Amino acid sequence: MSILKSIPGSITAPQGFLTAGVFCDIKRLGTGKGSNKGKKRDLAIILSEVPATVAGLFTTCQVCAAPVKVSAARATRDFAQAIVVNSGNANACTGKQGMKDAVAMTEWTAKALQLNPEDVLVASTGRIGVTLPMANVKKGIDSAAAILSDDAASASHAAEAIMTSDTRAKQVAVEITLGGKKVRIGGICKGAGMIHPGMSPSGARPASPPGQLHATMLCFITTDAAVESGTLKDCLREAVANSFNRITVDGDMSTNDTVIVLANGMAGNKTVSSKSSKDLKIFQAALNHVALELAKMIVRDGEGVTRFVTLHVNGALSFLDADAAARAVGNSPLVKTSWFGGDPNWGRILATLGYSAAKVVEEKIDIAYSAPGSKKLLFSLKNGQPTKTSFASLCKVVGAKEFDLHIHLNLGKHSAKLYACDLTEEYVDFNKGDVSNPAAMGG
Amino acid sequence: MSILKSIPGSITAPQGFLTAGVFCDIKRLGTGKGSNKGKKRDLAIILSEVPATVAGLFTTCQVCAAPVKVSAARATRDFAQAIVVNSGNANACTGKQGMKDAVAMTEWTAKALQLNPEDVLVASTGRIGVTLPMANVKKGIDSAAAILSDDAASASHAAEAIMTSDTRAKQVAVEITLGGKKVRIGGICKGAGMIHPGMSPSGARPASPPGQLHATMLCFITTDAAVESGTLKDCLREAVANSFNRITVDGDMSTNDTVIVLANGMAGNKTVSSKSSKDLKIFQAALNHVALELAKMIVRDGEGVTRFVTLHVNGALSFLDADAAARAVGNSPLVKTSWFGGDPNWGRILATLGYSAAKVVEEKIDIAYSAPGSKKLLFSLKNGQPTKTSFASLCKVVGAKEFDLHIHLNLGKHSAKLYACDLTEEYVDFNKGDVSNPAAMGG
Repeated sequence: MSILKSIPGSITAPQGFLTAGVFCDIKRLGTGKGSNKGKKRDLAIILSEVPATVAGLFTTCQVCAAPVKVSAARATRDFAQAIVVNSGNANACTGKQGMKDAVAMTEWTAKALQLNPEDVLVASTGRIGVTLPMANVKKGIDSAAAILSDDAASASHAAEAIMTSDTRAKQVAVEITLGGKKVRIGGICKGAGMIHPGMSPSGARPASPPGQLHATMLCFITTDAAVESGTLKDCLREAVANSFNRITVDGDMSTNDTVIVLANGMAGNKTVSSKSSKDLKIFQAALNHVALELAKMIVRDGEGVTRFVTLHVNGALSFLDADAAARAVGNSPLVKTSWFGGDPNWGRILATLGYSAAKVVEEKIDIAYSAPGSKKLLFSLKNGQPTKTSFASLCKVVGAKEFDLHIHLNLGKHSAKLYACDLTEEYVDFNKGDVSNPAAMGG
Repeated sequence: MSILKSIPGSITAPQGFLTAGVFCDIKRLGTGKGSNKGKKRDLAIILSEVPATVAGLFTTCQVCAAPVKVSAARATRDFAQAIVVNSGNANACTGKQGMKDAVAMTEWTAKALQLNPEDVLVASTGRIGVTLPMANVKKGIDSAAAILSDDAASASHAAEAIMTSDTRAKQVAVEITLGGKKVRIGGICKGAGMIHPGMSPSGARPASPPGQLHATMLCFITTDAAVESGTLKDCLREAVANSFNRITVDGDMSTNDTVIVLANGMAGNKTVSSKSSKDLKIFQAALNHVALELAKMIVRDGEGVTRFVTLHVNGALSFLDADAAARAVGNSPLVKTSWFGGDPNWGRILATLGYSAAKVVEEKIDIAYSAPGSKKLLFSLKNGQPTKTSFASLCKVVGAKEFDLHIHLNLGKHSAKLYACDLTEEYVDFNKGDVSNPAAMGG
C-alpha cells in the first residue's frame, strides 16, 4: 500500500491556507468595454492562517530579479505567512526601482492581511526589463486580499494567475499520515519557456555541474504538516534536486526561478525534524512526489512541446559525468529536432555524448528506448554498434507522445536522470517575438 | 595597401594542384534512366603534383569517425600528397569495418595516383552509422583520378562534391608575395548543421573551454608556398583558433570535423619557417583570412539561417570567461529565436550571460548593436539598464541580414568573438527527419 494518496486540489487542500487569483492588468492591456480579451488573472496571494515554517530555492542565474533577491533573504528565516505573485512582468533587470517595487508588493500585502512585511515573500514572472505598473499591482493585491478563500476554485484561480505561456494550470495534492494524523501537501507551478532551472537556497552558485546552472518556473507548495524550519529547508533541497533541477525545455535558465514551501503545522502532527526518522522519510517522499509531478507538468507543457522524454544515463564514471551527458543530450538541438520527427536516431546522440564534458568510449555505449517506465528495452545500439532491432519497432516507441531513452556508458556506477522534450517549429515561432508590438515582447 | 589580394577560384589557384569532383552514388539513390535527380557529386580527390608539407586539425568529439582517426595520424607526418573526400556518408560509428574502409579509400586513391597510401588523407561527411558502399566509392575514386585537372571548374566540382545540406559551394583564394615570389592560397569548405567545431591536431581534447569542444565542417586548403612542416602546423592552429573554432550554427559538434592544408612549395619562395619573421607574418595573415572567410560562409549558409551575427564580448575577467559568455549567448535558443524575429532583445541576453560560466555583474553590463564592422554602436543597455535608444532604430539594425552584437562586461580586459546565427523554423523542419524514409536519415 502506498504511503501517498493523491487527492484533488492543490494549495488549499492542506488546512489553514487561503488563496485568490485576480486580474489587475499587469501587462497594461487596457480594459476595453465589454471585452474579456487578454483579461487573464495575473496576481495571486497565498496566505497561511498561522505563521508557517518556510523554505525557498531560487535561480542561480547571476542576473536575478528583484523579487528573487527579496524572497531569498526572507526564506532564510524560520517563519513566513504569505506569498504574493504576479505574472506578465518579471521585475527583472529593473534596478533600484525594481527592488523598491518588490518590497512594496510585500508591504501592501502585509498591510491588507495585517502581517509583518518580513513574513511575506514575493515572486514575479513575465517580461524582463520593464518596471511594474504599481498602481495596477496595488489594486490587484487589495482585491485578492479581499476574496481569499480556502476553496478549490480559488486555488485554481491562483494557479491560473501565475501562468505565462503555459497552456494549462498545474496543480497537485497528496495526503499522507504522520503519527496517526492526516497531513496534506499541495502545490501549483508554472513554466513553459526559459526552462533549465538550477536553484540554490540563496541564489548563490553551488559547486555543481555547469548544466545545473541553467525557466522562469515558479512553484508554491503548502502543507499543514508541522516541520522544523531547518528540516523543511533540507527536505525542499532534496525534492528540488530530483525534480525542478532535473528538467529542461530549452536549456535557458531564467532570472526568476523560485520554489517556496510553507508548512503551517495545522495537521497537528508531532513536528517533523531530522530526528523523526520515520515521519521524515514519509514527508520527504510526499514532497518529492509533489515536486516531481509538478516538474514533469512543466516539461509536458513547455512551449511547442510535442514529446516528453525521460532520459536515463547510467554507467558513468561520476555523477557529474552522468549529469553532463544527460544535459548535453537533452539540450542538443539536433537530438531534440529528431525527437520532434519521432526519429530513433542514435548517431546524433552518440555525437552529443562525444562532445559532452563526460568521459565516454564509443565502443562501450549502449542506447535503448522504451515506453515510459517500461523495463522492456529496445536497443538501437550495443557497444557502439547498431543492433538488429527493426527500425519500425523503434519508430513505434519514439513516435509516442512520451518515451524513455536509456543511455549506458558502461564505464562506472554513476547515473543521472533528466526530463526533457523536443524542439519544434512552434517553439521557434512562439519565441521569435513580434517587433511590431514592443509591449508584447517578453524577456 | 593590403598585402592580400583576393583572386578567383580556390584549391587549384595555387600552382601544382589538381582536383576533380564526381558522382558515384554514395547515398545509393540508384540511377534512374534519364533522370539526374539527386545525382549530386559526392566524391572528390585533391592532388599535389609534388609532395607537400601537411597540417591537419580534427574534431575533439570523443566519438569520432574512422577517416578522422586515419587522417589525424597521417597529418602528424611532414609530407602528404593527396586527399580523398566523400559526402553522403560520414563513415562514423562504423566500427572495424569503417576503419578498413577509410584505409581502403586511401589505398585505392594511392594506387590510381601512383602514390604511397600513407601520403593520402581521407575525410567523410554525411549519415552516421552506416558503412560506405565501397563498390561505388571505388568507381568514384577511379573516375575522379582519371579526370584530375588544375582548372577552376574542377575546383568548383570538388567544392560541390563535399556539400551535404549546404545550399552553395564555398571557395576562396588569395595571392600574396613572399620574398618577391607570388604565392597563392586557396580553400574549399562545407558546413550547414552540427556546427560548433573545436579542433585539435590529434583530435585529443585540449585544455580549452568546454564550449570549444563542440558540424560536420570540412575544409581543404592548398598553397604553393614552401612552408616548413612544423611551422605549417603552428600556422594552421592559429588560423583555426580564430575562424572555424569560433563559429556556431547549432552548438552541436560533429564526429567528422576536419581541416587539412597542403603546402607544395611550387611558388619557389624561400621556405617559411619560425625564423622567417616577415614572410611568416604575411603567410599567417593570408591563411587566417582564407580560414575566416570560409568559416563565415559556413555560418551564413547554416541550415535555415536567415541572420548572421558577429558577437563581440569584451571586458571579461579572462579569455575563458569571454569565450563562455559568447558561446552561451550564441547557442541560447531564446536569443537565437529572438534574432530570427529581428528582435533587439536584451533581457534574454542578460539572462544567458547570468547563467553562463562567466563571471558577470548585472549592473555593469553594456549591450549594443551595430551594422557589420561599424563603430557606430547603438546601445540598448548601459550598466544593466535600458537606454533611451529608440526601439525602431534598434529594430532597423537587428532586422538586417547581418549585424554585430557588442557585449561589454566591464570587469576585466579579456575579449572573445563568435560568429553565430539565428534559429529558425526551417532548421527544425530540416532536422526533424523523415521516418518514412530511414535511408534518408542523417547523422
